[in-house]
Amino acid sequence: MTSIDLNADLGEGFGRWRLTDDEGLLTVVTSANVACGFHAGDPATMRRVCELAAQRGVTVGAQVSYRDLAGFGRRAMDVPPAELAAEVAYQIGALEVFARAAGTRVAYVKPHGALYNRVVRDEEQAAAVVDGVLLAGGALPVLGLPGSRVLELAGRAGLPVVTEAFADRAYTDEGTLVPRGREGSVVADPDAVVERSVGLAVSGTVTALSGARVEVRARSLCVHGDTSGAVELARRIHKRLAASGVRVEAFA
Amino acid sequence: MTSIDLNADLGEGFGRWRLTDDEGLLTVVTSANVACGFHAGDPATMRRVCELAAQRGVTVGAQVSYRDLAGFGRRAMDVPPAELAAEVAYQIGALEVFARAAGTRVAYVKPHGALYNRVVRDEEQAAAVVDGVLLAGGALPVLGLPGSRVLELAGRAGLPVVTEAFADRAYTDEGTLVPRGREGSVVADPDAVVERSVGLAVSGTVTALSGARVEVRARSLCVHGDTSGAVELARRIHKRLAASGVRVEAFA
Amino acid sequence: MTSIDLNADLGEGFGRWRLTDDEGLLTVVTSANVACGFHAGDPATMRRVCELAAQRGVTVGAQVSYRDLAGFGRRAMDVPPAELAAEVAYQIGALEVFARAAGTRVAYVKPHGALYNRVVRDEEQAAAVVDGVLLAGGALPVLGLPGSRVLELAGRAGLPVVTEAFADRAYTDEGTLVPRGREGSVVADPDAVVERSVGLAVSGTVTALSGARVEVRARSLCVHGDTSGAVELARRIHKRLAASGVRVEAFA
Amino acid sequence: MTSIDLNADLGEGFGRWRLTDDEGLLTVVTSANVACGFHAGDPATMRRVCELAAQRGVTVGAQVSYRDLAGFGRRAMDVPPAELAAEVAYQIGALEVFARAAGTRVAYVKPHGALYNRVVRDEEQAAAVVDGVLLAGGALPVLGLPGSRVLELAGRAGLPVVTEAFADRAYTDEGTLVPRGREGSVVADPDAVVERSVGLAVSGTVTALSGARVEVRARSLCVHGDTSGAVELARRIHKRLAASGVRVEAFA
Repeated sequence: MTSIDLNADLGEGFGRWRLTDDEGLLTVVTSANVACGFHAGDPATMRRVCELAAQRGVTVGAQVSYRDLAGFGRRAMDVPPAELAAEVAYQIGALEVFARAAGTRVAYVKPHGALYNRVVRDEEQAAAVVDGVLLAGGALPVLGLPGSRVLELAGRAGLPVVTEAFADRAYTDEGTLVPRGREGSVVADPDAVVERSVGLAVSGTVTALSGARVEVRARSLCVHGDTSGAVELARRIHKRLAASGVRVEAFA
Repeated sequence: MTSIDLNADLGEGFGRWRLTDDEGLLTVVTSANVACGFHAGDPATMRRVCELAAQRGVTVGAQVSYRDLAGFGRRAMDVPPAELAAEVAYQIGALEVFARAAGTRVAYVKPHGALYNRVVRDEEQAAAVVDGVLLAGGALPVLGLPGSRVLELAGRAGLPVVTEAFADRAYTDEGTLVPRGREGSVVADPDAVVERSVGLAVSGTVTALSGARVEVRARSLCVHGDTSGAVELARRIHKRLAASGVRVEAFA
Repeated sequence: MTSIDLNADLGEGFGRWRLTDDEGLLTVVTSANVACGFHAGDPATMRRVCELAAQRGVTVGAQVSYRDLAGFGRRAMDVPPAELAAEVAYQIGALEVFARAAGTRVAYVKPHGALYNRVVRDEEQAAAVVDGVLLAGGALPVLGLPGSRVLELAGRAGLPVVTEAFADRAYTDEGTLVPRGREGSVVADPDAVVERSVGLAVSGTVTALSGARVEVRARSLCVHGDTSGAVELARRIHKRLAASGVRVEAFA
Repeated sequence: MTSIDLNADLGEGFGRWRLTDDEGLLTVVTSANVACGFHAGDPATMRRVCELAAQRGVTVGAQVSYRDLAGFGRRAMDVPPAELAAEVAYQIGALEVFARAAGTRVAYVKPHGALYNRVVRDEEQAAAVVDGVLLAGGALPVLGLPGSRVLELAGRAGLPVVTEAFADRAYTDEGTLVPRGREGSVVADPDAVVERSVGLAVSGTVTALSGARVEVRARSLCVHGDTSGAVELARRIHKRLAASGVRVEAFA
């Protein structure tokens, strides 16, 4: 029986501000990418999300980011590798405290936003992220795009790697994401997103922007949590996956 | 044989800025209060200080603070208890990563600056600091002033408590610190500081501002690291303590 | 004919986060307290709010705060007076750029959150806020509570002072606010809030928590913008004031 | 008679941290690039530096930067143009308050660190910086490298442009800076730096890394203020320029 993980970004508020429906998403997803304070995520929120995730049996991951509250971690930064590695480890360590206190552990690492995109190709920063994960100890799995530099380097360093796909993003004929900003890069129709989720989980394929069927092998599907209707859409995806004979469960 | 610990605040730079002579101080002190990023202390510096401390056999402690880079943690803040507890735990967790990576562990917690002063009497914040230490796990000892609220609450919660004294600060007849800002609150003469260190370590007494001899029981002496001549003064204290038959060693 | 100003806090998002319905509120209020980056308010948001306010003919004021993004400026801080004065001036200057670019000017200053509450009684910080306003130049009016220390000191320093009242807050028999947290401190019923607005504007009185009618003289009413239904409630207040023969217009 | 301006980065501390010898440098330079809070520069320091500069008759300029205290503005960031423009204007406005209070005005704008380097070639960010300067009003001159994109766009937008050279940096045969990190990119010998200053000021030429004499036309020389001996070196340069018949005076 095929199984797939559903992951979402959680705890992406900061102090007075809220963004993600953490309670709602935690009823659906199997892996929670918890913001660690650099692009979002104050300590009290981190604690609360870890407690809710632990109660729900949802796996906790560290969503590490550039230090950029003002830009929500969406602005690529030329952080020197030694600093970046230390920043990654710092965030993992801070989250680990709340995960442990909630009776669970940080079980994986997923870079956020601009850092996520950058380590697809940037050798230096990809290596720095891997160094940060190694520094944090525990040989944590790294979640990222298939074929990305960061997964390649993580694998070489002996870390488990977990591939993910996006049902609401368009793909090229090479099985890579159509860059945001290009026409058609985002799939807005919820029905289409649900269908694509099933295709990705069951056959490991998705219809590319060109109409061709391309292979995209992923052990996890990312559902977005910062849009209205996010929880409802995630529920529909979860339901259809189950109805299609796919077991929805955490990879870790 | 009497023994005493020497602690100092270390890693109190941030990014481009340096304040403390970390290398120098680590040749003298037995306990390093490492800044954790809230009043000072970027991740790369935290890592470096932990590595140096581990090499030197110096005990690593988390110097937790209000979130206040602009004020260096010296501005008292009315942080709600649940937020403060989470902030304390966050800092301990972040430092723990670097301590472990360096082959050691965070072995105690010392509040910094305005938080240090506030938890001497403020019931709510003292309890929040203790909650934060408990949240971080490991039953870490708390370092503070004898008679302070935070030590009392830490003790009640089952945490080890460690008292400290300041050889370069004036004391009242009640054995408490003369508040900064009052005339004579700081002992500027290095010779006097050295003498007072010996008195505190050997007989647990110090000459108060009034001239009376008062009892101040402390397992650790704090030496300041952010003044010129700090390392030299710390060396003289260390030497005189040894010459007076006091073993200088970490409490933890 | 009686006239009253309606002011609201605007632009209280930061980067990715939004809080206030700026567009909606700017169709109702006559004075906009624009967040200046210390508790909320990124530069791009400040610019946008100034442009919208200028288009609508809404007066722009600087909502100055402690430097506290994590606590949304709601945590009292012991900022030394010289630093606080400079921080206040910094915020006013930053906002002035966007006000001017939009064809208007910063026309008044209103402290935010914990700073607002603190300068009701704290002599030192009230004086620092006044110093900051003076430093910024232009003899800007200060908006605050009747009888507050900051208005008294502002008046002495030759600055115009503007009193404000809160229709959704309970008052004591002395005409001061019932502290938040006490039972009954907030008036939740929208109908009651509308009625109280009219009373405050027309007769300068409000029913205290005890049931007594007390005098509260204010040239401006603060409507809250961070709750759902805020815009609708503000519209109802505006309508009822107009129907009661009150001219709703900016004080400045 | 030839004249040249000497500019230096000032006020580059933050809170407890100090970096530049502001008092010393203000006795030598004719233009002060004052940090505005984004990479360094707290409000109280900005105020103090403006007061000292005004007393000394030194021209005040806004040293605008990416929002990056942790990286001292030295990490290139992909800030969206509208945000960057607003951030530039925000910083100029904040500094203007202190310049005016000190009896002077912000007289020019100089990007700092990674932003300075980026706008040499990056069309989008160069345009954003120019937009920010225009937004701030007053048609402020922009200080930068000869041939840089930002100066070209500033000139097209009707802003005055001021070219600068670095006596302690190596030049290519094309008259551009040898990138930092390459061997020989920095001229460490103080005597050589003094000689090169005179050559740049008197004949508008400098010896390139290849040994060739190349033309570098600049109205301002940048002297670095964050190294030990910075003030002494600046004094020597100033003295030798005067002795060579060059009038050292602000361009603005």
